[in-house]
Amino acid sequence: MNKRRSFLQKSFAGLAGLAGSSTIGSIASAAMPLSRKPAARIRFSVIGINHGHIYGQVEAVVRGGGELVSFYAKEPDLAAAFAKRYPQAKQADSEARILEDNSIQLILSSGIPDERAPLGIRVMKHGKDYMVDKPGITTLEQLAEARKVQKETKRIYSIMYSERLENRATVKAGELVKAGAIGKVIQTIGLGPHRMSPKSRPAWFFEKNHYGGILCDIASHQFDQYLFFTGSTKADIVASQVGNVNHPQYPGLEDFGDVTLRGNGGMGYIRVDWFTPDGLKTWGDGRLTILGTEGFIEIRKNIDIAGREGGNHLFLIDQKDTQYIDCSKVVLPYGEQLVSDVLNRTETAMSQEHCFLATELALKAQKHAQRIQLS
Amino acid sequence: MNKRRSFLQKSFAGLAGLAGSSTIGSIASAAMPLSRKPAARIRFSVIGINHGHIYGQVEAVVRGGGELVSFYAKEPDLAAAFAKRYPQAKQADSEARILEDNSIQLILSSGIPDERAPLGIRVMKHGKDYMVDKPGITTLEQLAEARKVQKETKRIYSIMYSERLENRATVKAGELVKAGAIGKVIQTIGLGPHRMSPKSRPAWFFEKNHYGGILCDIASHQFDQYLFFTGSTKADIVASQVGNVNHPQYPGLEDFGDVTLRGNGGMGYIRVDWFTPDGLKTWGDGRLTILGTEGFIEIRKNIDIAGREGGNHLFLIDQKDTQYIDCSKVVLPYGEQLVSDVLNRTETAMSQEHCFLATELALKAQKHAQRIQLS
Repeated sequence: MNKRRSFLQKSFAGLAGLAGSSTIGSIASAAMPLSRKPAARIRFSVIGINHGHIYGQVEAVVRGGGELVSFYAKEPDLAAAFAKRYPQAKQADSEARILEDNSIQLILSSGIPDERAPLGIRVMKHGKDYMVDKPGITTLEQLAEARKVQKETKRIYSIMYSERLENRATVKAGELVKAGAIGKVIQTIGLGPHRMSPKSRPAWFFEKNHYGGILCDIASHQFDQYLFFTGSTKADIVASQVGNVNHPQYPGLEDFGDVTLRGNGGMGYIRVDWFTPDGLKTWGDGRLTILGTEGFIEIRKNIDIAGREGGNHLFLIDQKDTQYIDCSKVVLPYGEQLVSDVLNRTETAMSQEHCFLATELALKAQKHAQRIQLS
Repeated sequence: MNKRRSFLQKSFAGLAGLAGSSTIGSIASAAMPLSRKPAARIRFSVIGINHGHIYGQVEAVVRGGGELVSFYAKEPDLAAAFAKRYPQAKQADSEARILEDNSIQLILSSGIPDERAPLGIRVMKHGKDYMVDKPGITTLEQLAEARKVQKETKRIYSIMYSERLENRATVKAGELVKAGAIGKVIQTIGLGPHRMSPKSRPAWFFEKNHYGGILCDIASHQFDQYLFFTGSTKADIVASQVGNVNHPQYPGLEDFGDVTLRGNGGMGYIRVDWFTPDGLKTWGDGRLTILGTEGFIEIRKNIDIAGREGGNHLFLIDQKDTQYIDCSKVVLPYGEQLVSDVLNRTETAMSQEHCFLATELALKAQKHAQRIQLS
């Protein structure tokens, strides 16, 4: 395996040198005819496809130069849909068959949330890297074990916080903040409303021991963004609360949660809910507001209500001007960075500590949340 | 005085009957030639004009049918500017001269914040009603005394929470929520960023014993809106924090604060700050988001960044549709309602308990706020 990695790494470095570009797409078109696919940089497989997020995960790694080799899912209906979408991927007859395939470097999963960390631990113990849908870990005990095994094995445990890593406006905001566009960041406000569509949801969606609670699940995105944009490496939960305020028919559901945070890089507020009304033209009006000492940024991630078409809207207000930036063409670097990290044993996509800390905060906020009981 | 009130009350009721309308403007134009002013419904005076908000307060009461009779201010420069704007108002040589004028029914003030409640208590003890700029009270001790004297005298102590009472989009939201447009309200998020313009500020602006702290001062607006929209009659501060994160040259200033709330009608989050950058085309991008079980409302109070002109933008998303509502023509009822309350001894503009409770929450959040110390 190491030989193969080393070979791929060198040959890719050569291509990159030729093309003078860091994106796979442009390298491919510059260096070879369009009809010929570039050689895969890594081989990867999928285990567990209980959430549709798996398709976005696969696409990111394929864009980054990965070859989807095989997959395993317990559920015949989910497996059939996946096989139809990816006919080139071999359907394995067991998880073990994939874990024991030494040609596979990376495993992706969107299994049932509480089964994701145990799988990730098995993956790392088999010498492979892991990229998992959020929530990537559902209890503090799982987190402790994942951290321990990650340290021992030095494998990658990457939770795909897609509302940053796969949202073009949020990627752009990262560049702007890094360049000092709004001075020093003081606070982030992350709103993550979601449409529930209960008929489309499997049983585990309504069972807290499986999904981990609304802060663990949805809000893990906003914790990631809070840490990323404030640059905090330590943070405390100032307060958190969760409740089921309007769905008594689903007693295991939490339909509302919020959190206030304070860290060594700034403050944060997070609100998540399952109340997106049917009149909204997308699944949720996700917003991120980044307040800085010299300006602020607002991101309308998925929709600009009663405004511009599409998603990825960024508004930058600084000491000089107010600007709208359409981010729909911004390149998403996560997939390529992750593949490079697999090859180079680096942490360019996301530091391991950041990945775990975002989840640690979500799990602590969840565990210690006050319970909302409206009268 | 009672006779005068009774007379005015009856004659206004007659006019209202003629015009079939509840707004002063339309009554005036329907019932009499435009060149003739309607008879004043009440006579009012001003004591203390240390904040420019006084002009909005006066305009509201004039629109509501009040006649500005006299004013008193300690500061010659402020008094001169006020006299120029309102040449019809007599400049009194002392506060007592106004308090002892039995023809005056209502006193307005935008004095230095910590002097507002003591003045209000003197006003009520002189048998007059009081309408004051926010913050209307700066300590819990002042609040207890104001409540006691208000109960004894049965006078009106009205704090003009202008970001609701004088914001047309927020007035419209009140109508929509009352009509059930978004189901039951679950939570409000109120953002109150402000431009500091330090050179324009008097000394007391930077002295916490005078302005009371950022939650007491700015956030009193958002507490009012939280109670109003959730319909809460009881609420607790879940957490609050304040700090001076970027103005070491003004040690008495708090430039950031936030609060999480939970009450018997729903939850609330409030953030206020003094970080509006110069590139914003107004003093602050005030927002209110009202989350309901059947939809949500977003209000962009003062500006639609990089979007539509002007202020008073309302977005309503319900189970059927997404709508933009331009509220720039919505009638502001506060002034007229307050004047009617003065005449009729009613509480149509705002209940006395609501007025005090919004301030009580602000003062408690301020007093118990955690102190932000970024590293």
